[in-house]
Amino acid sequence: MTLIQLYDTTLRDGMQGQGMSLSAAEKVRVVRALDRLGVSFIEAGFPSSNPKEAELFRLLAEIELERATICAFGMTRRRGLAAEDDPALVSLVSAPAPVVTLVGKTWTLHLEKVTRVTREENLAMIVDSVNLCRAEGKRVVYDAEHFFDAWRDDRAYALECLRVAVAAGAETVTLCDTNGSSLPAEVAAATASVVGELGERVRIGIHTHNDAECAVANSLAAVEAGARMVQGTVNGYGERTGNANLVSILPALQLKLGFDCVPTDRLRTLTETAHFVDELTNTTPDPDQPYVGRNAFAHKGGMHVAGVQADARTFEHLDPRLVGNSRDVLISELSGKGSVLSRAEGAGIDLDADAAKRAIERIKEREHRGYHYEAADASFELLLRREAGEYRPLFRLESFRVITEKRADGRVETEATIKIWVDGRRYVRTAEGNGPVNALDRALREAIGELHPHLAAVELADYKVRILDSHQGTGAVTRVLLDAADGQRTWGAIGVSENIIEASWEALVDSLEFAFQEGQAPTASSASLPGAAGSVAG
Amino acid sequence: MTLIQLYDTTLRDGMQGQGMSLSAAEKVRVVRALDRLGVSFIEAGFPSSNPKEAELFRLLAEIELERATICAFGMTRRRGLAAEDDPALVSLVSAPAPVVTLVGKTWTLHLEKVTRVTREENLAMIVDSVNLCRAEGKRVVYDAEHFFDAWRDDRAYALECLRVAVAAGAETVTLCDTNGSSLPAEVAAATASVVGELGERVRIGIHTHNDAECAVANSLAAVEAGARMVQGTVNGYGERTGNANLVSILPALQLKLGFDCVPTDRLRTLTETAHFVDELTNTTPDPDQPYVGRNAFAHKGGMHVAGVQADARTFEHLDPRLVGNSRDVLISELSGKGSVLSRAEGAGIDLDADAAKRAIERIKEREHRGYHYEAADASFELLLRREAGEYRPLFRLESFRVITEKRADGRVETEATIKIWVDGRRYVRTAEGNGPVNALDRALREAIGELHPHLAAVELADYKVRILDSHQGTGAVTRVLLDAADGQRTWGAIGVSENIIEASWEALVDSLEFAFQEGQAPTASSASLPGAAGSVAG
Repeated sequence: MTLIQLYDTTLRDGMQGQGMSLSAAEKVRVVRALDRLGVSFIEAGFPSSNPKEAELFRLLAEIELERATICAFGMTRRRGLAAEDDPALVSLVSAPAPVVTLVGKTWTLHLEKVTRVTREENLAMIVDSVNLCRAEGKRVVYDAEHFFDAWRDDRAYALECLRVAVAAGAETVTLCDTNGSSLPAEVAAATASVVGELGERVRIGIHTHNDAECAVANSLAAVEAGARMVQGTVNGYGERTGNANLVSILPALQLKLGFDCVPTDRLRTLTETAHFVDELTNTTPDPDQPYVGRNAFAHKGGMHVAGVQADARTFEHLDPRLVGNSRDVLISELSGKGSVLSRAEGAGIDLDADAAKRAIERIKEREHRGYHYEAADASFELLLRREAGEYRPLFRLESFRVITEKRADGRVETEATIKIWVDGRRYVRTAEGNGPVNALDRALREAIGELHPHLAAVELADYKVRILDSHQGTGAVTRVLLDAADGQRTWGAIGVSENIIEASWEALVDSLEFAFQEGQAPTASSASLPGAAGSVAG
Repeated sequence: MTLIQLYDTTLRDGMQGQGMSLSAAEKVRVVRALDRLGVSFIEAGFPSSNPKEAELFRLLAEIELERATICAFGMTRRRGLAAEDDPALVSLVSAPAPVVTLVGKTWTLHLEKVTRVTREENLAMIVDSVNLCRAEGKRVVYDAEHFFDAWRDDRAYALECLRVAVAAGAETVTLCDTNGSSLPAEVAAATASVVGELGERVRIGIHTHNDAECAVANSLAAVEAGARMVQGTVNGYGERTGNANLVSILPALQLKLGFDCVPTDRLRTLTETAHFVDELTNTTPDPDQPYVGRNAFAHKGGMHVAGVQADARTFEHLDPRLVGNSRDVLISELSGKGSVLSRAEGAGIDLDADAAKRAIERIKEREHRGYHYEAADASFELLLRREAGEYRPLFRLESFRVITEKRADGRVETEATIKIWVDGRRYVRTAEGNGPVNALDRALREAIGELHPHLAAVELADYKVRILDSHQGTGAVTRVLLDAADGQRTWGAIGVSENIIEASWEALVDSLEFAFQEGQAPTASSASLPGAAGSVAG
């Protein structure tokens, strides 16, 4: 099998994405996760850019990696300076990383409008910079910026930039679609030409951006045309529309096209790795993300479920276990007994035939009233637990009251009082909040937090409300969907009522009861309400 | 230029996405937006599946579209039934849509494991179904389900399924990558073969899913191989990882590959259309979405900005204005001076240059805080009126208070008290409601209904809530979108606040003030609250 090197730039190009930031310690955790996944190269950063980056390279020099090689990234020398007099380049070659990735200009438009150097000077900048790195004992990856734009405008010069880098000792030259302008057919043709010209003397790499929603396809097209290194980021992080998503490129190369990227068993850590990095960067995982998303292998409807049970290939493009994901059966009006039983089994709930029948009746009756369990896995599991006799109530509600007041001075105040019973004891608590749901949440957690401190780790991650207008005359109802998370996983709860406060309360209670039943929320701080929940449930 | 038909299936396949639901009235709004964008076909739904869909087709039959043709979607006849005895097929051909899109099996694995019909019977099912549609005067698009999987397993049979559909009179046969298993090179090769075999007798279409993150590239590859119809959804909605995203396919085909899909000026409504449909489906727009995302043309760093000023091509893959997007992240399509002036003119507001400048500043400042005027035309017009000095307040608020109580007997009660001033007189009113917004609405109308009885005809038609979490650390806020209607027209109002009650109040007041300013609400009954509003604002 042909080896393809995966080159991860999450920690450098990925960090250009909006709102991205990681501490040096978090970056080390990402490096370990990527090494475990089995990538070949990890671009850790730009050593000259700030002291934090220097600290990161020091930390990385101390840890042992199994497969991955650390790369330091920087630009070719400034014009008019000898390479060894350029401070950025000097700090780049001083970083304790075996590989230096140098980016340089390739596109004549950029020479004219941006860097304002002659074509000859640009070639000298490339040569001098590669030479310095080689003289310092570094392996060199040369990234040809805007390569495909350059190819469109002046092929000979674009190729000449690559040639001089190869002659100076670069082991890989990367064709970069920096502005994301290219489509797969062009990438394939240009890459094939470069491979034809230089492929015997150097490895060709590909680096794409997702501006045309083709970054993954462009990377695959380049590999099929002979490229042997693919640069990208975890989950496609990156500026504008993002970089090429390695999480999608890896399974396509290895499982669909038969290339060798990582050891097969490592591929099973893909879903976990993708979610872990989302967690560190505080990015909400995309439920629809290819291969690793919660919905990526979700099946809807009786025919799909029956088909998958007969032969998974009928409705699945690959076995979700190969990438560490699992088959999720969505619940809807169309779903039958098979999917209810398989969901119960997945959740470890012992549902006998009678209980399954009762559960299905209950689902149908509730869906008729506006419940919708597709995005409410927590409420669904609670429903199954109730029918299976495995449900333990967290508390019993006596009453609650919420008051929101907009005062004459313009201030808005919200206060909630709840009265609940837990283990025969009555708790009365009042809390303020920045909205009625937040106030109820705080009051409830003040009461139950004393008994179940681990529930404090549950945060409200998202809250959505919709009015369902039914023309069947049953009257309009409010549907609340609430996502909660505990730092490891996310679950959805639903509430339906004519009254938005009651619907929100129902979803709120389900989200906490789910964590309580599962007993999976990590034991945590004594704070009864974490920041995110405080700001979310307006 | 070669014409490519865009075939939108947002309202059918897109609605298979998790949590998607739209009312018949909202679907009509989507149809109008797609027609304005200029797509060729709009698949409205599955007429046999439920009475709501039948209602939609009736509504659509009454409106006039400029370019788009409505399609009704259904399956080939059931086995062992004559086509004219299959109730689903009969209701399909009875729907008032000029085009019927029939989906049928192509993959022998599905014949064996799922439908359990012989190869011959499957061909007969295709032929009989197309024949019935043609006999009823319908144009037919034949969707060959799992075509690329079928092609891998048994090319001759896959092709035979297409051939019999063509012979029976289908005007287009669509190659469907139903499970999303395919990559661009395969799609290109298979499509080229089919075009070679059948391309002179029929139009070839392509329908892809995003399971390998290649749906857009697969669609482009098929077109480059000779396909002339592309099926997809707005923003790539759809089950699992979504369908092919028409919002990315359209600009690539038209601006990068030189095909003709929609009139050039319509392409400028792309961003607005994408965001409008997100608003209706209560989907958070993806800021990193190619072409239309808020970050799609965002520039970071001084060098980029200087480069773009020297020559935009240096860092932009295309001119954002061509797709209705813009370079400045904070300026939405509504806040350009041209669009502000044209909106003011459309609303009969006399906005001079200074007022327009102030309005643009105000819009930017409010968008920064989470306002979003694309689906809130009423709030937008009120903003313009305020800057033009044409705003007349309906009342002045002194204070309000809302109490929601869940009592020990399980009953939920909500009561609102408002204190307002109108024409120097103070009104204090208390009302109950089935939720806090409804109670506030009733109390407000009891007060102003005495002076402005025509406002009683204003009904709250929809109410949506979303939490906006800002990565900039300013804290999460609640955004409420409220649609109101008076039986003749519908308008949208927006409210943004940390507190859901205050945000709802703001939108509620805007929705009534809009009707008051316009003076367009018809004089109506003396009832202070119509039925729909009573049931809507939970």
